[in-house]
Amino acid sequence: MEKQVVLSVDLGGTNLRIGLVDRDGLVLSLQKYPLTTHSEQVLAVIGDHLQRISAEASGQGLEIVGLGLGFPGIVDAARGIVFQSPHFPEWNSLDVLSYFKGRFSCPIVLDNDANMIALGELWKGAGAGLENFILLTLGTGVGGGIVIERRVFRGDHGFAGELGHLVIEQDGFHCHCGGRGCLEMYVSATGIKELIRASDDVLGKGDFFKKLGLDVEHLTVKKLHDLTLEGDAFAHAIFRKMGHCLGIGIASLVNVLGISNVLIGGGVSEAADFFLPAAQKEIRQRSYRETAERVRIKRCQLGDQAGLIGGAYRLFAPPAPYQ
Amino acid sequence: MEKQVVLSVDLGGTNLRIGLVDRDGLVLSLQKYPLTTHSEQVLAVIGDHLQRISAEASGQGLEIVGLGLGFPGIVDAARGIVFQSPHFPEWNSLDVLSYFKGRFSCPIVLDNDANMIALGELWKGAGAGLENFILLTLGTGVGGGIVIERRVFRGDHGFAGELGHLVIEQDGFHCHCGGRGCLEMYVSATGIKELIRASDDVLGKGDFFKKLGLDVEHLTVKKLHDLTLEGDAFAHAIFRKMGHCLGIGIASLVNVLGISNVLIGGGVSEAADFFLPAAQKEIRQRSYRETAERVRIKRCQLGDQAGLIGGAYRLFAPPAPYQ
Repeated sequence: MEKQVVLSVDLGGTNLRIGLVDRDGLVLSLQKYPLTTHSEQVLAVIGDHLQRISAEASGQGLEIVGLGLGFPGIVDAARGIVFQSPHFPEWNSLDVLSYFKGRFSCPIVLDNDANMIALGELWKGAGAGLENFILLTLGTGVGGGIVIERRVFRGDHGFAGELGHLVIEQDGFHCHCGGRGCLEMYVSATGIKELIRASDDVLGKGDFFKKLGLDVEHLTVKKLHDLTLEGDAFAHAIFRKMGHCLGIGIASLVNVLGISNVLIGGGVSEAADFFLPAAQKEIRQRSYRETAERVRIKRCQLGDQAGLIGGAYRLFAPPAPYQ
Repeated sequence: MEKQVVLSVDLGGTNLRIGLVDRDGLVLSLQKYPLTTHSEQVLAVIGDHLQRISAEASGQGLEIVGLGLGFPGIVDAARGIVFQSPHFPEWNSLDVLSYFKGRFSCPIVLDNDANMIALGELWKGAGAGLENFILLTLGTGVGGGIVIERRVFRGDHGFAGELGHLVIEQDGFHCHCGGRGCLEMYVSATGIKELIRASDDVLGKGDFFKKLGLDVEHLTVKKLHDLTLEGDAFAHAIFRKMGHCLGIGIASLVNVLGISNVLIGGGVSEAADFFLPAAQKEIRQRSYRETAERVRIKRCQLGDQAGLIGGAYRLFAPPAPYQ
């Protein structure tokens, strides 16, 4: 008998990941491709990869039982449409589901990438066993997902969970969304660069960039983390400031939602040791004691497989009213 | 046959309201009492009023089938405990339910006052017919309630909906909760006074207080509203600033929750004509188009009866899994 797998896609702003995931949530293969276009042509590129991988999988005795698509942006998961996506500015109410239905005959689900990650962590990661949790992915931007009673909470039209656009500073940094002071502009890789630009520690900043031999444009969070590990005080202070801002965001979220478990993922979360203490201080300061003492911040466990596993969960899991 | 009614209590920081509410959600009588104590003695005062009203009601052919208690603060509705309450600083994990169970034999429910208001509006007011909504009461402070699938959303421990403690300004006005820049400190009656104190329009402020003949301590929102209606530019600018802050808070809430209907109540909401335009501008600016264009802000319809009607709803309504 053939082994049943889901072919799962996690589309980011710079890379595309495609994996085969089995019924136990195991990722059997994972391919990463750099994106060569950001127009609607991305769909054709993805479709071609999927067709090839699909054919190879059949040859290896695997049966593709569904396609899971995790796309960034404002997604209507029920209708399969991406309204807009910061990384793909040309897209405008792109009917992703119809495109793939035209090319593949298996069941297909589309969801926001962060929601897919939330479902992956819910199934096989840091969310296993939790009834409710808040997920924040700290990458180039901030992705968000809210899980209530083990389902992704979607609000009225599917747009809930835009946690990166919680305002923490009314006249703060300008955000690509048109707003100002959005959490994303302080705690993502993009936001950390803004914090560095805005820092008034001129001497510390000068030393830091001398040591680094790079300008802020070319700085990566990995580099900043490495220098913090080496004891650079400026780099450490930036992570503390970032943690302060993250704590404000989490305090607002737990005050509103009363959900105690907060999962953080994404590349920036690798430096959690350096920013979480400042975050926890703000949460204690800015929430009622009963709320604050129950907050548990956990690191995500599935890394860049989470979204792929989440896509498989949507297709393999027993059909809840609305995952 | 006797007519069945719920005896409903809405406890505020300065007043206590008690009403008899029938099965149709009609308030048959409503008494308002100024609070004479803020210690735990409040429970005995309420109990005495309830016993007297109860006895009178029996004499009028009314059968009390339950007690509904709406209390301000951090409330565990399931266990009937008020952990803390800004207006009653001496209270510390007060077991309200046990106290009233010791004096009354009918079914008793306790809930956060804003949640009771949300349930009242859900049953008979601006929330009738809505599946999901966000409620903000703008009074001395800010109360909040989140209704999802026609139930109050409570989070893990019953503390969800502290919408007044959403942070809109990281180093903003100090809040009694220990935090800074909480929404409550900008859009409640207390917050409006802070906005006036912080205003740098020295001339306008001078003229305003001369016209008013009162200092900021004795100013009421009603007075501010009256002067705005008379064309005072300073008073109008304060409402615009307050609306700006409210819009930031609502934008954050709709970005997080994806819930389109926002109900506003409380005394401050009387001046909605003067602050809503500024709020709506911020919502458009700070949310994705798909979200912003669906936001509907509605005024609450039940005034100071809402909480009493909500208490009756919790006792009369068919038992949902958890109202």
